Amino acid sequence: MREKLMNLLNEREEEMIALRRYFHENPETSHQEYKTADKIADFYAGKDVKVERNVGNGLGIVVTIQGNKPGKKIGLRADFDALPIMEETGLPFASQNPGVMHACGHDGHTAYLMILADCLIQLKEEWSGTVKIVHQHAEEVPPSGGKSIAESGVLEDLDEIYGIHFFPDFELGEINYTSGWAFAGCSDLTIKIQGKGGHGSMPHLSNDAIVAASSLVMNLQTIVSRRINPYDMAVVTIGSFEGVGASNVIKDNLILRGDARYMDMEVGKKIEKEIRNLLRGLEESFGVETEMEYLWDYPPVYNHPEQTEKAVRALEKFGIGEYMEKAVAGPASNGAEDFGQYLLKIPGAFMNVGCKPDAEECYMNHHPKFDINEKALIIAAKAVGDITLTALEEQ
Amino acid sequence: MREKLMNLLNEREEEMIALRRYFHENPETSHQEYKTADKIADFYAGKDVKVERNVGNGLGIVVTIQGNKPGKKIGLRADFDALPIMEETGLPFASQNPGVMHACGHDGHTAYLMILADCLIQLKEEWSGTVKIVHQHAEEVPPSGGKSIAESGVLEDLDEIYGIHFFPDFELGEINYTSGWAFAGCSDLTIKIQGKGGHGSMPHLSNDAIVAASSLVMNLQTIVSRRINPYDMAVVTIGSFEGVGASNVIKDNLILRGDARYMDMEVGKKIEKEIRNLLRGLEESFGVETEMEYLWDYPPVYNHPEQTEKAVRALEKFGIGEYMEKAVAGPASNGAEDFGQYLLKIPGAFMNVGCKPDAEECYMNHHPKFDINEKALIIAAKAVGDITLTALEEQ
Amino acid sequence: MREKLMNLLNEREEEMIALRRYFHENPETSHQEYKTADKIADFYAGKDVKVERNVGNGLGIVVTIQGNKPGKKIGLRADFDALPIMEETGLPFASQNPGVMHACGHDGHTAYLMILADCLIQLKEEWSGTVKIVHQHAEEVPPSGGKSIAESGVLEDLDEIYGIHFFPDFELGEINYTSGWAFAGCSDLTIKIQGKGGHGSMPHLSNDAIVAASSLVMNLQTIVSRRINPYDMAVVTIGSFEGVGASNVIKDNLILRGDARYMDMEVGKKIEKEIRNLLRGLEESFGVETEMEYLWDYPPVYNHPEQTEKAVRALEKFGIGEYMEKAVAGPASNGAEDFGQYLLKIPGAFMNVGCKPDAEECYMNHHPKFDINEKALIIAAKAVGDITLTALEEQ
Amino acid sequence: MREKLMNLLNEREEEMIALRRYFHENPETSHQEYKTADKIADFYAGKDVKVERNVGNGLGIVVTIQGNKPGKKIGLRADFDALPIMEETGLPFASQNPGVMHACGHDGHTAYLMILADCLIQLKEEWSGTVKIVHQHAEEVPPSGGKSIAESGVLEDLDEIYGIHFFPDFELGEINYTSGWAFAGCSDLTIKIQGKGGHGSMPHLSNDAIVAASSLVMNLQTIVSRRINPYDMAVVTIGSFEGVGASNVIKDNLILRGDARYMDMEVGKKIEKEIRNLLRGLEESFGVETEMEYLWDYPPVYNHPEQTEKAVRALEKFGIGEYMEKAVAGPASNGAEDFGQYLLKIPGAFMNVGCKPDAEECYMNHHPKFDINEKALIIAAKAVGDITLTALEEQ
Repeated sequence: MREKLMNLLNEREEEMIALRRYFHENPETSHQEYKTADKIADFYAGKDVKVERNVGNGLGIVVTIQGNKPGKKIGLRADFDALPIMEETGLPFASQNPGVMHACGHDGHTAYLMILADCLIQLKEEWSGTVKIVHQHAEEVPPSGGKSIAESGVLEDLDEIYGIHFFPDFELGEINYTSGWAFAGCSDLTIKIQGKGGHGSMPHLSNDAIVAASSLVMNLQTIVSRRINPYDMAVVTIGSFEGVGASNVIKDNLILRGDARYMDMEVGKKIEKEIRNLLRGLEESFGVETEMEYLWDYPPVYNHPEQTEKAVRALEKFGIGEYMEKAVAGPASNGAEDFGQYLLKIPGAFMNVGCKPDAEECYMNHHPKFDINEKALIIAAKAVGDITLTALEEQ
Repeated sequence: MREKLMNLLNEREEEMIALRRYFHENPETSHQEYKTADKIADFYAGKDVKVERNVGNGLGIVVTIQGNKPGKKIGLRADFDALPIMEETGLPFASQNPGVMHACGHDGHTAYLMILADCLIQLKEEWSGTVKIVHQHAEEVPPSGGKSIAESGVLEDLDEIYGIHFFPDFELGEINYTSGWAFAGCSDLTIKIQGKGGHGSMPHLSNDAIVAASSLVMNLQTIVSRRINPYDMAVVTIGSFEGVGASNVIKDNLILRGDARYMDMEVGKKIEKEIRNLLRGLEESFGVETEMEYLWDYPPVYNHPEQTEKAVRALEKFGIGEYMEKAVAGPASNGAEDFGQYLLKIPGAFMNVGCKPDAEECYMNHHPKFDINEKALIIAAKAVGDITLTALEEQ
Repeated sequence: MREKLMNLLNEREEEMIALRRYFHENPETSHQEYKTADKIADFYAGKDVKVERNVGNGLGIVVTIQGNKPGKKIGLRADFDALPIMEETGLPFASQNPGVMHACGHDGHTAYLMILADCLIQLKEEWSGTVKIVHQHAEEVPPSGGKSIAESGVLEDLDEIYGIHFFPDFELGEINYTSGWAFAGCSDLTIKIQGKGGHGSMPHLSNDAIVAASSLVMNLQTIVSRRINPYDMAVVTIGSFEGVGASNVIKDNLILRGDARYMDMEVGKKIEKEIRNLLRGLEESFGVETEMEYLWDYPPVYNHPEQTEKAVRALEKFGIGEYMEKAVAGPASNGAEDFGQYLLKIPGAFMNVGCKPDAEECYMNHHPKFDINEKALIIAAKAVGDITLTALEEQ
Repeated sequence: MREKLMNLLNEREEEMIALRRYFHENPETSHQEYKTADKIADFYAGKDVKVERNVGNGLGIVVTIQGNKPGKKIGLRADFDALPIMEETGLPFASQNPGVMHACGHDGHTAYLMILADCLIQLKEEWSGTVKIVHQHAEEVPPSGGKSIAESGVLEDLDEIYGIHFFPDFELGEINYTSGWAFAGCSDLTIKIQGKGGHGSMPHLSNDAIVAASSLVMNLQTIVSRRINPYDMAVVTIGSFEGVGASNVIKDNLILRGDARYMDMEVGKKIEKEIRNLLRGLEESFGVETEMEYLWDYPPVYNHPEQTEKAVRALEKFGIGEYMEKAVAGPASNGAEDFGQYLLKIPGAFMNVGCKPDAEECYMNHHPKFDINEKALIIAAKAVGDITLTALEEQ
């Protein structure tokens, strides 16, 4: 059976590339991926699968493929939103939607997974169990598609879930992975501070929001420096101090925006708790009112060791030497990825597929010149195919 | 001679009011007072006086009136710029220049002084000495007209200088004054802080301008709390913390704007020096670059005790019971006034003329419904007339 | 009658000086003034007065002298404690109690008042009303004698109260006074901060009291800089940061000691309130426990304008030219004086009697070489005598 | 040859234990280990080795054993100082020196190594190369013996160096190790801040060292929170804030003591550099003078991977199943150990030998009830013996 799948994938490599180029040429930003979702849904139309649309808080699509008899239930996920970036690649299939660009490889994720799904559909009488294909919207910004799909109940019966990301800093042929905490979690935070305005000459009749906020920024430093285990990764950044006013008027209110990063959910929770402590303290100390929105859309990605090991073994047994060169255990990444939402509920693993282009310079994800080596598409398809069959206990 | 002056002023009260209404209807903002300046200059055209135009850094006008023989040289100053405020008085002579309004009484200052000047010109064979009439532009914003005229050299030969301001919180008939420090000085300050931007997950490769600026704001508090004599009035306010950015990007640079207030030039100088110390310290501590612009346009107004007393004696001797009710020694004001610039160089005094309107509610200077009681115009003219004759030693 | 009093005082000047020298030679520190109190009480023994001992929280003595008929009730106060200072004057009557010294003139205060009291007793058939002589213990340190006597009820029937202090920076013959707020108030404060100790390598398992306290010290600066009217005098000092520990152990608890100074009780109350706000905020922000003792023993001395004026008039009418040269209205003093406690409850005034010695150098109060010009004793006695008779409406 | 060594060690196990008990009963604190050093030196007296005494900054002893011909040069180190702790073990051989205790196992380190050394001496005609036995004084406190010996030049010719530490939280039979950064580095720091004292009511004439130091403590937090890679371990603790003074006197100077911890020398250097930046900034900002002593006695222990692997291989090949159960790669430790000084200059490894006692409760190093399982002595001796022979290329 595995051989049949590999052969089918080989036959459809060009279609994979064509799909990727279609998506690349027609990028849509998060929560606006109407045409993209239609394109995907049309692809599955008429096939013997269950297609659920508008899953979660947007345009998510879940395609359920039943094998020849009940068995393990495996999820495979790819994201399909693009970024608000003006493309500068000069590719013939560059974005036709100015100011929007597939600069993070989601075009490729979607393309390889559609073809892999179709091949699994073709072969479904030959394997047992269930495969759910998760075409996810809105990975890039909160409120995140991943969070909403993971919490929607549609995936509740899954035994395991897998996904990959293309990264051009890994060589073509390399699949890189981290068992355990693999991607930093990231919480977006917005703090409003309400003091009382007044004339610059009468501070005692006012309540200076800028002084209160400055004290808060200083005290926020103590979260990382004193309240988190020094062996744990943690960052708290205030990236925006929005307190524009008149030079001679005491500022009445302002907004701080920032993010917190952490490699362990417990650390993330500790950070939120400590910020809330500091805000309560600020209210008492300075007599201001505060409000905080703290978003949990991007938990750290925790690759379950058992599933990670299983996936790596599959690659080592079948892939290496055939369609890929090496599987490398690497360090965790600073980046945020909402695949972590699925892994909070379902065992699984998320791996990094090398897609370094044949070019002098390599531009990283989110760069206006970002590109992927399209030979990575079939590598991804075969690798995830092997992982899926292994997870289904078909090999 | 005094009687003649008073009679002439009485005869021309209506003209004074008409002039005030003309200016009120045609307000122009600081450094844009082209028509106002022309109107004033035209008034003096053909009279036996020296008219200097474009004095200082703008449209200032100095009119020199020679008496019958050399003697004391006395300056009288009125300001003529308006404010960027949308008038809401509903007066028949309300502003014809939408968004610009004489909301600080400079229309009245200019009107009374023009008529007083003309009367002094008419009587110039009957008094000795010199009177310089200073029609000042741009009192409201730096770079200030007062500073530039005071430093222009045109007034270098003056022995004394006087001025008044209309305030509707004092009753009609009251002239209020403070000997010594009378109005707080105010310095406008702009601080630029240049760090180094970077991704929110990599603070060690960046240099967070928001953290540096917050530390500065906290340390700035120590100027008033620890570095200034607790008996001296001092305020340092950061009114604008301009650090808007992306929540997940470490901020590279930002601007703080604020002001410092003080009732003694030495305190003002200490504040500037200590802020510069803190900025040098910030550079060393946080590796940022800083730059500060600290404007000295509004020094505290220091009413020289001898001249103040002389003026008050003149009012007590001639004015009280005749055209005014009382001269009241009051506390210093928080407001800023660039008349202080003249008093840094020339002995003199600046007094507050009550102009409370016959209305239920009284709106303060800079309010869109601000108005003056026009009966205050002749009070001001006679009071300054008496002060001038006394200063010229003519009474 | 006034003449008789002045003559009696003249006759007893030497006795006054002898008494002062006795006290100077036998100084006792606050709350330990056993022999001093006995000496004073012995002085009044057998005289036709009511003597109350152990008034307030220590060795205070109140002597009530009834005039020939009921009338105004006037209090006169002098303090009698010494300081823990090693005397360096080299005087023949220098302290026989090593390490203790009358370095603040209380020896003189007590001496002049005893003789004045005795003269008033001698003449009591010739004046009407009541005089209460308040010999106060423990002026120098909290818990203060003044506070306890003022709150004891013993003085509740007084109409007015007066007192003086010797200051060698005023010339002999000068009596200096301030109507209204005359001496700064001073509150002693002790703050305990309880965190949680731990090894220097594990800050997350500890709660660093030093970081919390440092944040508090920075935030305390905002009381003077932002929360008090910039025209009001206010100082908050942490003079002792008691956080000694091991370099590699996170500090579990520490003590801050400091004082607050203010020229208006409302400002003092605001300071206490704001410190308590900051402490509550600190508890929330840093999870520490805090406790504060804030002592109110030294309120600002408020000289009631009516009584001050009355006293000054008495001096101007009777004293100047006779036994003194001038009564000068001066600025308020930074020093603390618990006479303010009486003035919180009873109208009155506290004046500064010049006692500059005939010496090249003048050493201020609390200096080991401090001395007073003994000619000031009779000046004080006569001045307070005149003020008393005036207050009793006997002249 | 290996077999002979093992047999000899077996024969001398009781002597090892007796030596350990002797040292345990006669503990001496760092830099005061006179009798201990004599005991060790006496042990080697008359043997055919070179004994160097007083090596480094104290009582260090280096014993050089020459094999039968030139070859690899290997160092073996054990430390011999005790701690200022009052022993509470109740052992029959408990400390006879009240208040001093071998609570860190150095008694055992020294005992096993002396016997191992002696066996190597006995067999020195059967192995080639050189072994230097380093009996180190003063491991516990700076100025550290390890630093001084490592810098003394005596060990300059070594090819490799090894050492072990007993830890009762590892089971008897386990040897635990970390390749790479194994123990945190620790720098002791002392900061003096000199301001200018003054009366609490006159902050403007003083320069408050407590406010400056508090600002520094807050800014120090930004080192860990913003200036160090969030993936790197770093702690900066101020454990002692020595600012005791009078509540009403502005503090003129104070001392901060603390430590910095880091798992990478580059991080340690960055911390020192950033503290120095902050101190320069403090001087500019607050006009204080500062001085810092920053000690480098305890760098992080970096186990060179090649030597670590070689040692582990030796244990796996010879020890496991024979005299020990397992060699376990564990995480790095927070503790500080001056063995890192040798590893800055010489490749080598430092391993943790399990010594959990047969007791209900296990007390960690530095606890008054700390004890070791004496069966660990021979395990250490044999393990280090095997590592030595392997390093000498004799097996």
